[in-house]
Amino acid sequence: MIAVAQDYKTSQVLMVAYMNKEALTKTLSTGIAHYWSTSRNKLWLKGESSGNTQKVKKIFTDCDMDAVVLKVDQTGAACHEGYYSCFFRELDIDKINKPKTDLEDLNDDDIKIIASRLFNPDDVYGNE
Amino acid sequence: MIAVAQDYKTSQVLMVAYMNKEALTKTLSTGIAHYWSTSRNKLWLKGESSGNTQKVKKIFTDCDMDAVVLKVDQTGAACHEGYYSCFFRELDIDKINKPKTDLEDLNDDDIKIIASRLFNPDDVYGNE
Repeated sequence: MIAVAQDYKTSQVLMVAYMNKEALTKTLSTGIAHYWSTSRNKLWLKGESSGNTQKVKKIFTDCDMDAVVLKVDQTGAACHEGYYSCFFRELDIDKINKPKTDLEDLNDDDIKIIASRLFNPDDVYGNE
Repeated sequence: MIAVAQDYKTSQVLMVAYMNKEALTKTLSTGIAHYWSTSRNKLWLKGESSGNTQKVKKIFTDCDMDAVVLKVDQTGAACHEGYYSCFFRELDIDKINKPKTDLEDLNDDDIKIIASRLFNPDDVYGNE
């Protein structure tokens, strides 16, 4: 299922990931957010490389019980790019050329970075 | 890609759904949230049955460009169950029996409803 992590104080969305039963079990038993890595196909302790773990304060489930919202206390930054939130770019919806809506095709004029890095990814993850 | 809709004033997460290129195009051109219904396999104007549409104020994209956050002005209620947010249930993480973490197995003691309905689903959707 989909998991949305929000800062427990500001409600800023920090990241979106997936959870399976194992990830939810680990999250509940440890109080630290675990996800299911779909790229590595394994349980993923968020922050296992960077130390930027998430202490889980609250968990909400949705009407269909196929998504959860985690209210977390984020250590450091959530994004592997070094930003506090993975959602550090805002689409300029007024300026975007309407038919050009493939996200891959957006250029620098269409998207502005709205945050500053809290760490340099190269320092934390090396050449990963 | 995953789309998270947040109340643009309070940042409460209202719902989680999917978008494809067509849904994003429609959202950008109309300013009203459109998703891709994975159950019906078709473009889904949120609120097409209920009238509970979402005016899109801002759109953020994540580091991997495979998820978006929409800040929306929600008409009525986002949830088809009649609640403002689909995430109207909170897990009692202190009380949950740790090994019993399949969401389907949770009982009423494990989950509390934290919101009141804004409409009665039967009135809006009939026996849909």
